[in-house]
Amino acid sequence: MKVRRSERLIDMTHYLLDHPHELISLTFFAKRYDSAKSSISEDLAIVKKTFNQRGTGILETIPGAAGGVKFIPTITSEETKGYLQELANRLSDQTRLLPGGYVYLSDLLGEPELLRQVGRIIASKYLGQEIDAVMTVATKGVPIAQAVSYYLNVPFVIVRRDSKITEGSTVSVNYVSGSSERIEKMELSKRSLKRGSRVLVVDDFMKGGGTINGMQGLIEEFEAELVGVTVFAEANFKGKRAVTDYTSLLYVEDVDTQTKSISVVPGNYFNELD
Amino acid sequence: MKVRRSERLIDMTHYLLDHPHELISLTFFAKRYDSAKSSISEDLAIVKKTFNQRGTGILETIPGAAGGVKFIPTITSEETKGYLQELANRLSDQTRLLPGGYVYLSDLLGEPELLRQVGRIIASKYLGQEIDAVMTVATKGVPIAQAVSYYLNVPFVIVRRDSKITEGSTVSVNYVSGSSERIEKMELSKRSLKRGSRVLVVDDFMKGGGTINGMQGLIEEFEAELVGVTVFAEANFKGKRAVTDYTSLLYVEDVDTQTKSISVVPGNYFNELD
Repeated sequence: MKVRRSERLIDMTHYLLDHPHELISLTFFAKRYDSAKSSISEDLAIVKKTFNQRGTGILETIPGAAGGVKFIPTITSEETKGYLQELANRLSDQTRLLPGGYVYLSDLLGEPELLRQVGRIIASKYLGQEIDAVMTVATKGVPIAQAVSYYLNVPFVIVRRDSKITEGSTVSVNYVSGSSERIEKMELSKRSLKRGSRVLVVDDFMKGGGTINGMQGLIEEFEAELVGVTVFAEANFKGKRAVTDYTSLLYVEDVDTQTKSISVVPGNYFNELD
Repeated sequence: MKVRRSERLIDMTHYLLDHPHELISLTFFAKRYDSAKSSISEDLAIVKKTFNQRGTGILETIPGAAGGVKFIPTITSEETKGYLQELANRLSDQTRLLPGGYVYLSDLLGEPELLRQVGRIIASKYLGQEIDAVMTVATKGVPIAQAVSYYLNVPFVIVRRDSKITEGSTVSVNYVSGSSERIEKMELSKRSLKRGSRVLVVDDFMKGGGTINGMQGLIEEFEAELVGVTVFAEANFKGKRAVTDYTSLLYVEDVDTQTKSISVVPGNYFNELD
């Protein structure tokens, strides 16, 4: 049964949002709605325009027989700026201060709305770059990795500090934990990453960068390629960082356990926005 | 500037999908599109009909001054059945067999498309029930919890087996690990769950149910309420389970390390579908 334009637009929007970065042929939609390809083309032009106007994302049109459309989620600079500022304010709440100058983040990293926004913001940073997998380290990096993975539509892999029987054979590396200067070990299931994969590393928090550096070592062991590093928050770190090329959404500028104050501002992601 | 119906339908669909279980007033949409409430009402009727026909979800209309619409994601029995069967087939692949009769799942739990479907399927099970939080245990339960949390639009909390300085004060319980009969400890950050919260417990895998039972203990410690338990996969377990009331998406019927075969079938969720 032929489907009306209004209904096509609604279902098409849903389908595209659920399948980001996936090439979908006009034939697929034409069959789904029992409609002519020319009508589908017109529909997609309206979707494209609306997505563009609302900052939802880019609807790429690939011409030819093997062509179709691809939805690439984005977020506007303006929205990102507003959101990072709002997050910085939330993090600056002194009740988040933990003994040792740590900042309590776990509640935020469990909020679906925050994770959706963070995922969209991080994914937008790597627009047009080929990424095969998102990598993070257990446990608190996982929500960030999953959020990004949803928007890039590529799998995420979890590096672990503890050996688990349910991971099968693993590849491990040693790394220097920045904060304690201890030598630690991290490992990744052998079958979770293909050789030559292009990998985006994400994590919740970075101090000295030792953990991130460890993941870079793992990527080398897998003969894979690092595309970039983005962390949710970075701390003000006095020493020499093990990682210099990274993006942060937030920057924990100062933590004072005496006066019980935290000062968090948007990270270097913010500076790159025009 | 007034927005045309076609563009309203597209953006409205996006907005509703991104804000499940949230009451949105007609005034909000009327302002967003600079359109009359009567037009918005008509739009929503079309969205409602399409979501219903496509099995996307229910668009609830709440009348009155404090009213509006609420989008509740669902999935049809038919789609669920097909998907669980497909998953069962994927899990029955003998290359997933690990020493000790374990099944390799980590790759699946890192696939965004699988997680979206699993999240939708689990969330649909608790339609109409009030849920304030999703709880799971680190690490492999996290992707499931996050996937469900996205559809229910409530936060998820992560119980940990290891103490972390970044969690602040915690509440801990001891529990009997079913497989090893050892007494273990798990803990949850004190500020992550409000007293009286209605909690849905999810996990990736259940054997004896010891871990789930531990989480139930934690829920009691927090004076919270258990709404239900759903696991991605349950193993065939000969002994007496510590948990009897649970839902499983998949059932690992048999694992034979000698013949290197795994037999996985849809779990008890499937049986409840009409």
